[in-house]
Amino acid sequence: MPSLELTFLGTGTSQGVPIIGCDCHVCRSKDPRDNRTRTSLLIKAPDLHFVIDTPPDFRDQCLREEINRLDAALFTHAHTDHIMGFDDMRRFCEMEDRKMPIFAGEETMSHLRRMFQYAFDPPQIWKNYLRLSPNVIQGPFQLGETTVLPVELPHGKMTTTGYVFSREGRKLLAYFTDCASVPDVAREAARGAEVLVLGALRDAPHPTHMNFEQAFKTAAAIAPGRTFLVHLCHEVAHAKKELEMSEGCQLAYDGLKVLSTKS
Amino acid sequence: MPSLELTFLGTGTSQGVPIIGCDCHVCRSKDPRDNRTRTSLLIKAPDLHFVIDTPPDFRDQCLREEINRLDAALFTHAHTDHIMGFDDMRRFCEMEDRKMPIFAGEETMSHLRRMFQYAFDPPQIWKNYLRLSPNVIQGPFQLGETTVLPVELPHGKMTTTGYVFSREGRKLLAYFTDCASVPDVAREAARGAEVLVLGALRDAPHPTHMNFEQAFKTAAAIAPGRTFLVHLCHEVAHAKKELEMSEGCQLAYDGLKVLSTKS
Repeated sequence: MPSLELTFLGTGTSQGVPIIGCDCHVCRSKDPRDNRTRTSLLIKAPDLHFVIDTPPDFRDQCLREEINRLDAALFTHAHTDHIMGFDDMRRFCEMEDRKMPIFAGEETMSHLRRMFQYAFDPPQIWKNYLRLSPNVIQGPFQLGETTVLPVELPHGKMTTTGYVFSREGRKLLAYFTDCASVPDVAREAARGAEVLVLGALRDAPHPTHMNFEQAFKTAAAIAPGRTFLVHLCHEVAHAKKELEMSEGCQLAYDGLKVLSTKS
Repeated sequence: MPSLELTFLGTGTSQGVPIIGCDCHVCRSKDPRDNRTRTSLLIKAPDLHFVIDTPPDFRDQCLREEINRLDAALFTHAHTDHIMGFDDMRRFCEMEDRKMPIFAGEETMSHLRRMFQYAFDPPQIWKNYLRLSPNVIQGPFQLGETTVLPVELPHGKMTTTGYVFSREGRKLLAYFTDCASVPDVAREAARGAEVLVLGALRDAPHPTHMNFEQAFKTAAAIAPGRTFLVHLCHEVAHAKKELEMSEGCQLAYDGLKVLSTKS
């Protein structure tokens, strides 16, 4: 039975929850599930461990989940809330004395290169600095025995990259965040996956993110085993909102672990 | 009596303490003073509140210290551990519906501009996005009634900016971190300041940072009221090292508050 072990490192929007200086009831909530760092997912395959996005909170997320191994990083897009922990991957280079393989679409990679120039074009190689092995995504690729199918998702004037992960020909995970919708090609790619992760901001519509209603409809169309919602803003109180989920859908929270297994 | 209220937001080196995947006794320490986010200082003057550097931990630091007001940000240099929380200043723009004044040397500002292009040259102004009022430092400047004197400090092949803060003609604070030494011009600028903050990495020498011995000598030459050491690595156990301080020097720690008053 092929499987992936998922850890939701972060499940929040760009400002996280609580938001600085906000005294709304969710930002003041004592429910730890309302405490959301910026969205990121750790995926442990039997052969390799990889992460999707490195938010500013990445060091904290690694410490919290006691992550001491990382074999690759995939990026959805180059907005700050998804990449500003990039340099903290240096530690995984140091521990294994290796370059970190990173995967991103062409536009995302060019932004990463612009922002983290020193790591892409280092004047000198230091053992404890971030060393990269950049891979611009052109189509499906392998991470060890895991096949990764990238798909394009609309996010305002730009596109983000969604990812569908399979092992032994079984779809184990589709990860679609920061998108205004999930177009047909991406729906087909994800159809029947064991686990679907979808970005769902809040109840109210938003020009570049799906809201709950759109996420529920998208999940129903993809018909996965289970759906987990991420990229949640401070309008979402976990305890209240979890009672309003569509069938098969649930809210993710920081630290949630899910085993994605398909027989 | 002119005064500044200082809060040490972070006191650690680039990887913070604990370091990901490290099981040394300091990284496993239960002493909260050994828990170091990346180095940053909040300065509350009677008229304005400002910060030096916005590390990746900046959001956490703001939440921890319940910071709900920020009037300006100063930058020492553009290494990732000093700037990757830059975008989290957006909240202070939103709360006051204003641009955030930022101050940096020419080279540092050009790096900030390259990395955070979207905020320097926004295609559109959004109320809850980071809006900037950039100021390239050319010499002394005013932050309200506080006079800020920038000085250059050597940091390997580059220079960092140190700052000396005065009110009513009294030197209240000199802040020199990430420097291999403090040259004569900077020493003279800081001489006799009420509070001196110095970067001091560890006991062992380092090519681009002062160690404790160098920091102690520098402090003695500047002869401030008190000296606080920051940018401490995981070789520094607070409880042990504080017994080995030179006279007038002490280790800072995350959350330490100091009132700098000069009669």
